[in-house]
Amino acid sequence: MFAEIITIGDEILIGQIIDTNSAFIGKELNKIGVSVYQITSIQDDRTHILNALRDAKSRAQIIIVTGGLGPTKDDITKHTFCEYFNDQLVENKAVLSHVEALFAKYINTPISDINRKQALVPSKATVLHNANGTAPGMWFYEDNTVYVSLPGVPFEMKHLITNEVLPKIARDFKRPYILHKTIITYGLGESALAARIEDWENNLPEFIKLAYLPNLGKVRLRLSAKGPNKEIITKAIEEESQKLTSLIGDLVYGTENEETLEHVVGQLLTKKKLTLATAESFTGGRIAESITAIPGASAYFKGTVVSYATAIKIEVLKVDSELIEKHSVVSAPVAKAMAENVKKLMKSDYAIATTGNAGPTKGDSNAAVGTVFIAIATPKRTVVEKFIMGNQRERIVEKSVNKAFELLQKEILKF
Amino acid sequence: MFAEIITIGDEILIGQIIDTNSAFIGKELNKIGVSVYQITSIQDDRTHILNALRDAKSRAQIIIVTGGLGPTKDDITKHTFCEYFNDQLVENKAVLSHVEALFAKYINTPISDINRKQALVPSKATVLHNANGTAPGMWFYEDNTVYVSLPGVPFEMKHLITNEVLPKIARDFKRPYILHKTIITYGLGESALAARIEDWENNLPEFIKLAYLPNLGKVRLRLSAKGPNKEIITKAIEEESQKLTSLIGDLVYGTENEETLEHVVGQLLTKKKLTLATAESFTGGRIAESITAIPGASAYFKGTVVSYATAIKIEVLKVDSELIEKHSVVSAPVAKAMAENVKKLMKSDYAIATTGNAGPTKGDSNAAVGTVFIAIATPKRTVVEKFIMGNQRERIVEKSVNKAFELLQKEILKF
Repeated sequence: MFAEIITIGDEILIGQIIDTNSAFIGKELNKIGVSVYQITSIQDDRTHILNALRDAKSRAQIIIVTGGLGPTKDDITKHTFCEYFNDQLVENKAVLSHVEALFAKYINTPISDINRKQALVPSKATVLHNANGTAPGMWFYEDNTVYVSLPGVPFEMKHLITNEVLPKIARDFKRPYILHKTIITYGLGESALAARIEDWENNLPEFIKLAYLPNLGKVRLRLSAKGPNKEIITKAIEEESQKLTSLIGDLVYGTENEETLEHVVGQLLTKKKLTLATAESFTGGRIAESITAIPGASAYFKGTVVSYATAIKIEVLKVDSELIEKHSVVSAPVAKAMAENVKKLMKSDYAIATTGNAGPTKGDSNAAVGTVFIAIATPKRTVVEKFIMGNQRERIVEKSVNKAFELLQKEILKF
Repeated sequence: MFAEIITIGDEILIGQIIDTNSAFIGKELNKIGVSVYQITSIQDDRTHILNALRDAKSRAQIIIVTGGLGPTKDDITKHTFCEYFNDQLVENKAVLSHVEALFAKYINTPISDINRKQALVPSKATVLHNANGTAPGMWFYEDNTVYVSLPGVPFEMKHLITNEVLPKIARDFKRPYILHKTIITYGLGESALAARIEDWENNLPEFIKLAYLPNLGKVRLRLSAKGPNKEIITKAIEEESQKLTSLIGDLVYGTENEETLEHVVGQLLTKKKLTLATAESFTGGRIAESITAIPGASAYFKGTVVSYATAIKIEVLKVDSELIEKHSVVSAPVAKAMAENVKKLMKSDYAIATTGNAGPTKGDSNAAVGTVFIAIATPKRTVVEKFIMGNQRERIVEKSVNKAFELLQKEILKF
């Protein structure tokens, strides 16, 4: 049994927005044992929508469609579903009351004819209540296939998936058990890693798949298993990941699917009741942002000074201006001083500091684009490392943020 | 003439990664006049790849495939292309030398048999040089259709698209001119906006399409035109967007396709030779990160204090602890003091400050989750506004960052 996702919207095809809805839906369906066979992004076009529905129907039993449900002229999904099911639009009283209530609460004007159209739904649809917006979700069942139509606004779509769609799928479909486990490795390339685990990989049971996901110095190894029996699946994944870890234990830094390095570090700090501050130059707040994106970060995160201008390094972080003159602003001594000073300023146990040149121009220093210093101040010492990170701004910043968490983790684990 | 994009990888279908490659490719193709008809994300599966290629071939003349080109067992794209074209793999000397050179430079070990396999390419393929990695791009031409196979690593894919694929497409295909113009509006919902511009929208020329893209308080209106004559297209888009702007001028804050609010603000500050600093609490560096993501931000951006812990507000930002006790840390007076103090500390002309509760728990204040204060300190005054932003952490932060730039822009434009 497969599901398919169809996202409707020219803005996806011209690259104006990135489709994040499909990844969310794919992940949530997977959790309840439904595999997504294909994701298809199509135009706001009647014929294209009809063809995509027919094609998906030939491969899947659950078809989830997002987008094209707004009240404006360019939104045609509802009308096209009517054509597909040979149906017609009827006014739904519950949806109309909901739209009226939203307007009374937030807009303070009576609803217009355009808003009233949001209450029109195909007569064959079961309405899914959209608590976060005016466009209702819709559930159709025909010829052993479920079709779900959802608004494209992520906030509204997510709420409908979680509260309406998943419970209904769980009720109506018998599903296998799917389990993924991802082991995150650092320090060896994809092919060298593959050579090292080749024998083990060749002997994996049929129902377990291995995937290599390389990205910026990390290679994630994902084990996926699928089957009717939860216990067998769970046990097999556990056994295989232990065998794998025994082969590459020196390279592993995390073993959970959603565990990012900043999560791992956050958990370590929380457990050890230690605190962290950062002083960021070219990373511009990206480290702070990664930390604070995690709920509960206030338990260990004190704060940050983003010292983008050299003057801020001197005046706020109290880095000696002579030190900067002597070594330049992109240097190991300056990184070290930034880390130690922000640690002192914020009274934290650990501190991360970054200084470097992410380009495109050389900025306040003469360091070549891609030159980066990362310092970690700990209760016992300060370490500084230099890196050459290539010449692409975005990539330099991203790799440096990863590197900073990696170095911090190493230091925390040492003491 | 249409293009299609096929992205291969189970990690996309299970939602482990978000497919950002397609948006990049779609945008770049659009710039040279090639419309993407459909984007399809499929499994690492022989049959699925073959079917997707055949389906795409029935609709498009350019088919761009990403993913599945690594050296490991789960990567089968190359083999499947051989099957599709009834072809076989042959060792390519240039690719082999390139892989050897990369290893000599970065890895310092001789290449293994697995690495050597990267040099195997279908005999019918024209190799596209991948300067950033070991997996070559491949270009096939058969039966009036171009097929391009690229690695899925974004860094490698982007380089190949820009330097190899686009020039070849521009050389081989006659293309129409495509132009988009997006007008970004604030302050009116999608349906009210639609009502206001209904007459204008009904009278748009056939070759111009209008799309509504609502997101977090903003509605972007995208005009798209396509045709053989660049001048006619350009003139028509310009005329229609002027008509539109005259109808909704009070709501417009930007008119460029890629112009985000932080870009607009950055340009304003640069032009006026003014500087900016930020003091961020619950936004945790997100404002700083948005600013510094723009090359050239060092012309106007001084730095940031992320005062996640209340102690940092007192000790680094010098907010009076009595003020915090009296009004609580999430309050207008504290936001005002944070903005004024960071402005003074960093000697900037303008400052943004945020304090609020993004949840999930109440944290250091008793403010309800979603309560947010944003202050803008200017050379002449400080304004503070209170917002209730719902109860979803990520959304509260995102809306607040948008709001902060909006308020800042208003203040800059006033003086």
